[in-house]
Amino acid sequence: METLVTRYGIARVEGDELAVVDLPLPNLRWLFKAGQTLADVETAPVTRRLAKADLDEVVVPPLGLDTAVWGVGLNYHGKAALTGRPVPTEPILFLKPSSALAAHRAALPIPADLTTQFDYEAEVGIVLARALHDARPEDVWDAVGGVIAANDSTARDVMKATGTPTLAKGFPGCAPLGPTMLPPSDLADRDAIPVASWVDGEERQRSSTADLIFDVPELLSRLSRYVRLEPGDVVLTGTPPGTGQDRNDYLRPGQEIRIAVGPLVPLVNTVA
Amino acid sequence: METLVTRYGIARVEGDELAVVDLPLPNLRWLFKAGQTLADVETAPVTRRLAKADLDEVVVPPLGLDTAVWGVGLNYHGKAALTGRPVPTEPILFLKPSSALAAHRAALPIPADLTTQFDYEAEVGIVLARALHDARPEDVWDAVGGVIAANDSTARDVMKATGTPTLAKGFPGCAPLGPTMLPPSDLADRDAIPVASWVDGEERQRSSTADLIFDVPELLSRLSRYVRLEPGDVVLTGTPPGTGQDRNDYLRPGQEIRIAVGPLVPLVNTVA
Repeated sequence: METLVTRYGIARVEGDELAVVDLPLPNLRWLFKAGQTLADVETAPVTRRLAKADLDEVVVPPLGLDTAVWGVGLNYHGKAALTGRPVPTEPILFLKPSSALAAHRAALPIPADLTTQFDYEAEVGIVLARALHDARPEDVWDAVGGVIAANDSTARDVMKATGTPTLAKGFPGCAPLGPTMLPPSDLADRDAIPVASWVDGEERQRSSTADLIFDVPELLSRLSRYVRLEPGDVVLTGTPPGTGQDRNDYLRPGQEIRIAVGPLVPLVNTVA
Repeated sequence: METLVTRYGIARVEGDELAVVDLPLPNLRWLFKAGQTLADVETAPVTRRLAKADLDEVVVPPLGLDTAVWGVGLNYHGKAALTGRPVPTEPILFLKPSSALAAHRAALPIPADLTTQFDYEAEVGIVLARALHDARPEDVWDAVGGVIAANDSTARDVMKATGTPTLAKGFPGCAPLGPTMLPPSDLADRDAIPVASWVDGEERQRSSTADLIFDVPELLSRLSRYVRLEPGDVVLTGTPPGTGQDRNDYLRPGQEIRIAVGPLVPLVNTVA
């Protein structure tokens, strides 16, 4: 069931309504830290009902704004084919600062003095419900709590100048996640999760995780060889072709980026 | 005044004693988040006195184990001279996962299947008391809450294989910090902080931050152009020559690493 966090607490989407439930935890990261899962949200008693139409007014970041977010470079076959870059034999992994996290509908405060090539990257985010360390690929999905929409936005010129994804993707408040999460068991096919993006209503990206170079189990397994992922940590899985870089057309103030992951409520942000 | 956190609470070092004070905060990261500084520890009433000789038994990680830790590659002139690498014109910055953090006296659980070149790096850590974003060098020291000893331990072979400091320095429980902190105003010279290391009692590194390529104000200013540093975040300033890599002699199980930063209680860890 699609789950989110409102100002009134954790809630599930039920048709046209948001059903706030009786779970005294600040967000879904804390739910996972407490050893619970989205299944506990599904069965919890309802304390309040809100209109789904009001989601933008009541929603807050589902994992808070202090979780770890990992990302991966070039991870779609379609992107490798388009750019002519060789298919990597090991994932290109990086960690984003938590201070970069942003909410659904937040305006992204791009530092105009640092970049003229600010770009969107629609991505499927994988949220851990349990810690994961040195895990085999076949054990990865059991530790996953949900999928989430993400914009792994990137300053292409800063990436070129520094060679450091953490800096090019780490500006404060430029890394939005959410607004909702869905357990993998509720997906039509967890190995082919649709992902798409639009800028000012014009479609820019459309693919699915079936095109990943390192699929979800392989990606998280490899990352977990080196580091311990914690409950509530997020792993972004890479972006398909169609970014501004691929079109030489970067984001401008006032533009709206919409990112859809599977059947989840789309993530929408504007450029400040 | 030298400050630490004990099982009984925040404490200051007073001669042969640890004076636990009446500040109801879990650690020094939370102290900074609450807008306080080490000066508030200095003036707080004492609730309990412990013997400094028992420090190892009562001390806990001063910033907790979930703070952000930034690091920098090659940042000592002496190291650049020794290795023949060119002096960088921009700092080589990286972010470590919080799950890598470890306590004073903890045994470091090196993953033997991943590395045979596990190495120490004695470093001066700079802890932010206030958030820092897009700051000028001359404004940096005002935001600093204290200095801390750190071991930015690194698997050299993983670094070579992945090119990713976050992975080569991110193994769970392999990044110790502490045990104490000192405000910069208590240092003899904040621009020349001594740093040294010993392995099994044999001196391996001895230098001071006077030899930094990017000094503390310059390093934090440059990092803050890209990201927002938060109260309690730590920035490691690089390591001087004398690491295992420089001697082709890597750490083995049971060895003890001791790191001294200025007059602070040395950070001691063993290899598991």
